[in-house]
Amino acid sequence: MRQMRIGMAQINTTVGDFAGNTHKILDYIAQARSLEVDLLTFPELAICGYPPEDLLFKPRFIEQNLKSLKEVIEHSNGLTIVIGFVDAEGDIYNASALIHDGKLVGVYHKIYLPNYGVFDEDRYFRAGKNCSVYVIAGVGVGINICEDIWYENGPATTQACSGAEIIVNISASPYHFGKGDFKERMLATRASDNVAIIAHNNLIGGQDELVFDGGSMIFDEKGKLITKGRQFEEDLVVADLDVDAVFRTRLHDPRWRKEIMIEGQRWQGTKVVVSSQTLSNSQKPSIPPRQLQTRGFPGEVYDALVLGTRDYVKKNGFEKVVIGLSGGIDSSIVATIAVDALGSSNVVGVAMPSGYSSPESIKDAELLAYNLRIKFLTIPIGKVFQTYLEVLAGHFSGTEPDVTEENLQARIRGNLLMALSNKFGWLVLTTGNKSEMATGYATLYGDMAGGFAVIKDVPKTMVYDLAGYRNSLAGLDLIPSAIIDKPPSAELRPEQKDTDTLPPYELLDPILTAYVEEDRSAEQIIAMGFSEEVVERAARLVDKSEYKRRQSPPGIKITPRAFGRDRRLPITNRFR
Amino acid sequence: MRQMRIGMAQINTTVGDFAGNTHKILDYIAQARSLEVDLLTFPELAICGYPPEDLLFKPRFIEQNLKSLKEVIEHSNGLTIVIGFVDAEGDIYNASALIHDGKLVGVYHKIYLPNYGVFDEDRYFRAGKNCSVYVIAGVGVGINICEDIWYENGPATTQACSGAEIIVNISASPYHFGKGDFKERMLATRASDNVAIIAHNNLIGGQDELVFDGGSMIFDEKGKLITKGRQFEEDLVVADLDVDAVFRTRLHDPRWRKEIMIEGQRWQGTKVVVSSQTLSNSQKPSIPPRQLQTRGFPGEVYDALVLGTRDYVKKNGFEKVVIGLSGGIDSSIVATIAVDALGSSNVVGVAMPSGYSSPESIKDAELLAYNLRIKFLTIPIGKVFQTYLEVLAGHFSGTEPDVTEENLQARIRGNLLMALSNKFGWLVLTTGNKSEMATGYATLYGDMAGGFAVIKDVPKTMVYDLAGYRNSLAGLDLIPSAIIDKPPSAELRPEQKDTDTLPPYELLDPILTAYVEEDRSAEQIIAMGFSEEVVERAARLVDKSEYKRRQSPPGIKITPRAFGRDRRLPITNRFR
Repeated sequence: MRQMRIGMAQINTTVGDFAGNTHKILDYIAQARSLEVDLLTFPELAICGYPPEDLLFKPRFIEQNLKSLKEVIEHSNGLTIVIGFVDAEGDIYNASALIHDGKLVGVYHKIYLPNYGVFDEDRYFRAGKNCSVYVIAGVGVGINICEDIWYENGPATTQACSGAEIIVNISASPYHFGKGDFKERMLATRASDNVAIIAHNNLIGGQDELVFDGGSMIFDEKGKLITKGRQFEEDLVVADLDVDAVFRTRLHDPRWRKEIMIEGQRWQGTKVVVSSQTLSNSQKPSIPPRQLQTRGFPGEVYDALVLGTRDYVKKNGFEKVVIGLSGGIDSSIVATIAVDALGSSNVVGVAMPSGYSSPESIKDAELLAYNLRIKFLTIPIGKVFQTYLEVLAGHFSGTEPDVTEENLQARIRGNLLMALSNKFGWLVLTTGNKSEMATGYATLYGDMAGGFAVIKDVPKTMVYDLAGYRNSLAGLDLIPSAIIDKPPSAELRPEQKDTDTLPPYELLDPILTAYVEEDRSAEQIIAMGFSEEVVERAARLVDKSEYKRRQSPPGIKITPRAFGRDRRLPITNRFR
Repeated sequence: MRQMRIGMAQINTTVGDFAGNTHKILDYIAQARSLEVDLLTFPELAICGYPPEDLLFKPRFIEQNLKSLKEVIEHSNGLTIVIGFVDAEGDIYNASALIHDGKLVGVYHKIYLPNYGVFDEDRYFRAGKNCSVYVIAGVGVGINICEDIWYENGPATTQACSGAEIIVNISASPYHFGKGDFKERMLATRASDNVAIIAHNNLIGGQDELVFDGGSMIFDEKGKLITKGRQFEEDLVVADLDVDAVFRTRLHDPRWRKEIMIEGQRWQGTKVVVSSQTLSNSQKPSIPPRQLQTRGFPGEVYDALVLGTRDYVKKNGFEKVVIGLSGGIDSSIVATIAVDALGSSNVVGVAMPSGYSSPESIKDAELLAYNLRIKFLTIPIGKVFQTYLEVLAGHFSGTEPDVTEENLQARIRGNLLMALSNKFGWLVLTTGNKSEMATGYATLYGDMAGGFAVIKDVPKTMVYDLAGYRNSLAGLDLIPSAIIDKPPSAELRPEQKDTDTLPPYELLDPILTAYVEEDRSAEQIIAMGFSEEVVERAARLVDKSEYKRRQSPPGIKITPRAFGRDRRLPITNRFR
């Protein structure tokens, strides 16, 4: 029985941290060795972290990456390893090294370079052209990278035709909700179409606006999910692959060698014999089966936000964060996420009440801080606000109070949080949600001031889902029910409600999704059944707020299209 | 004698302004008709403006663009027109329409899509494959787009081989200093190599971070510059092209048909006869020759900043701007540029002195405002600052004054400017230079708060060049000499000088250029002769300030690599 023990190291790398990444890789190599793994895989660009962006233009960055690869090779005795790195051969390539027992035996260059959404890979890499198959201990192994596996009749098919029984796909596939199921179906189809085992090794961890969710998966040649890595956590996924089953299935599959072999001629596939030693897996202690857990909405989104926040804070060298607590739902969910990411002792909440803050809001904020066991400061803004008004009075004479005075309050709060940040080294987390970012219902340099915008890509209606989820997980009102139940308000003028300015969020959010994420025109959205007035207003607000978004802090992408790298609109733009 | 009268309409379009752009195009068509132009050209994507970025994903944007093209076609009677638009045939293409006498007779698809620097064209467009040549009144005309002409043996060569005597290159080529000379030499070489007349029609105008400088050029078949459009201004460049000379030169050029014809087989080139009517240019009143003016440094940079500022302000619907005047050189040059862009009556200067402001600084700011004839306000910040300190005193007890208190002053100024902006609709121009943006020597939400960062890409040493230039142009100390002569200071603590924190700018700027624009490593820069300590410090400052730059307002690119779209570095980054 031909059986191969694979280990997929689903690790959390940091961009540019060659020492740290290499250290972690060597650690997993040692673990894999103790588990008698034959073939150990790592994610896409594991050596340098993903995505390295314009660091790839720095020659020393490429050199360091090659040096780290050499170190990994030197520690590979007795193992076969697949690992992502940047290859430099005339041009640079998003590459995968095949290392066998102390030697680099093959390099694969990613063929399909994504250049849409958050991806800019055409900016950096030359595309590969070759789909080799490596014969390792008598087993045919094809290697490809991330995007390559998304194409029907792509590199995997060429590799299958050229003798690959196992296809290793190393990835750095950013999370957004709904992607997991889609990816799972795609991989299952790719496995059964090519009658090959597919081992998809994903990255985990947060990198600026992106969260990689892990959930590495192996499918058998019939498309059945064999095992799955944990989501949002590091993991070493080990499985014994039954390669003989691939042979048997192909023998009885009428499509095999007919359709498949024709499609497979697209890329150049050569066969390289790496080792002919026999595998002796049968004597190894067997791997206990895993439970194939799936998270699902909204818990999955919540976990993505926790991981994204933790990694942004820690990878940037911070320990503690500070959050302005208004007693509203947005700042409450951000504080809760921060506590889950960093621990209560690393989160500081600050209430900054004004004359327009209701006594309930202050009480609600205090109760939340108590529930979360976080340090809680109160800094009233009234005196500073009054002083500003006095200083500006002469210049403002003859004018009426308007959005100026509202923004001023938000900006005083921003300044106070930044002062605490500067004085104590706490990172400011901002609390604006996607509905606000979309419509510009936020004050630049005010509530938008801070280092990281945790729920920037979470529509307001989903904020409520997350709060409900977290409370039910706690089995109590961690976020006080009063906060969840009250109508949203910025409390910047007497009796203010969000609905004074915006349509109700249940109405607004689907319009925003259609307009921002799906590029539907106002006409099309109206045709979906929404009122013309509401749609036109929402579209206008989105269009004219681009300048604010351009100056907003980064935040975690959890939808198919986030603001930021994912959506690149001009500020100067007369298209309506 | 075969002669063709060409008109190159070097127009200032606005992204997404289909009505406005079409109106302008029809206007130039009328002008060209009155000048008896045979062939009228417009810039790349003139119909929709450049670069439209993710607006290209909106189906209605593409439709509007096709509708506008139709309108242009309807107004083309008696003329041949080349104009940039977005073609939609299955996929979308960066395209050029050839319109003849009321009909669309050909479409060229850009072959080389730039996907580096500020460009993301692979994100949007499919590349073209065909290089047709159009026979217009017996003259062979090849059309290609911007990047296409930068390649030796590219589309122009195929077109020349397939019978093109005139190559029209429609462009949207963003300005940076030094590019003009390089482009002129490249175009001259392309013309003489292909023994063809080259007519390069560039765009002018500002679009967010980019300025297009016009300077459209025509070269004869020997590579001699025949005529040139104005720089930083709209223009209609008209010239009579001697096509017979192309024929004669080719006849006597030994390389022609040998080397050229071999290289020219790369793309598919077909010949399309558009019209066979004879041109009767000899009866037209002749075009008076133009003076071929060249601007040169630093006047050219100054003009780029003026145009970029004017267009950002006006195209975004503002009339007036407000600038914090510190009495320093940066805010002084920004105010001067703003006055040149918008007129004195549209610029407001605000002095916001603190206890650390020297009496000279306030006087200098006031004198500058007087010289520029701009409205001048004074709003001291001391009282607001004191109130903040009182409110924070309890929380800060046991700590020493540090950068917190300095940032607070900068942020109070930011708030005051934003309050004026909110109340009166004035756009805030920020005054930070590139040396500060690079090293993070600026306060987020403080002096970085504003809508547009005029000199964001101008190194400090170049700010002095610009001030000297503008004063010599005025023939007097428009910017008071005291401002130019004093050592730079942020005046945020007693006796503060920039050199307390940063190396002298004459030392710092070349290091920053090497590190930021040329991707040299610290080691390489030290090897250039700079002190290790200074280089390491500068590199560290650049690396750790990415988070600030990510939240900075857009500013005008004038160097080969600006911060912004041009340089995409991760914030989370441990590479040193």
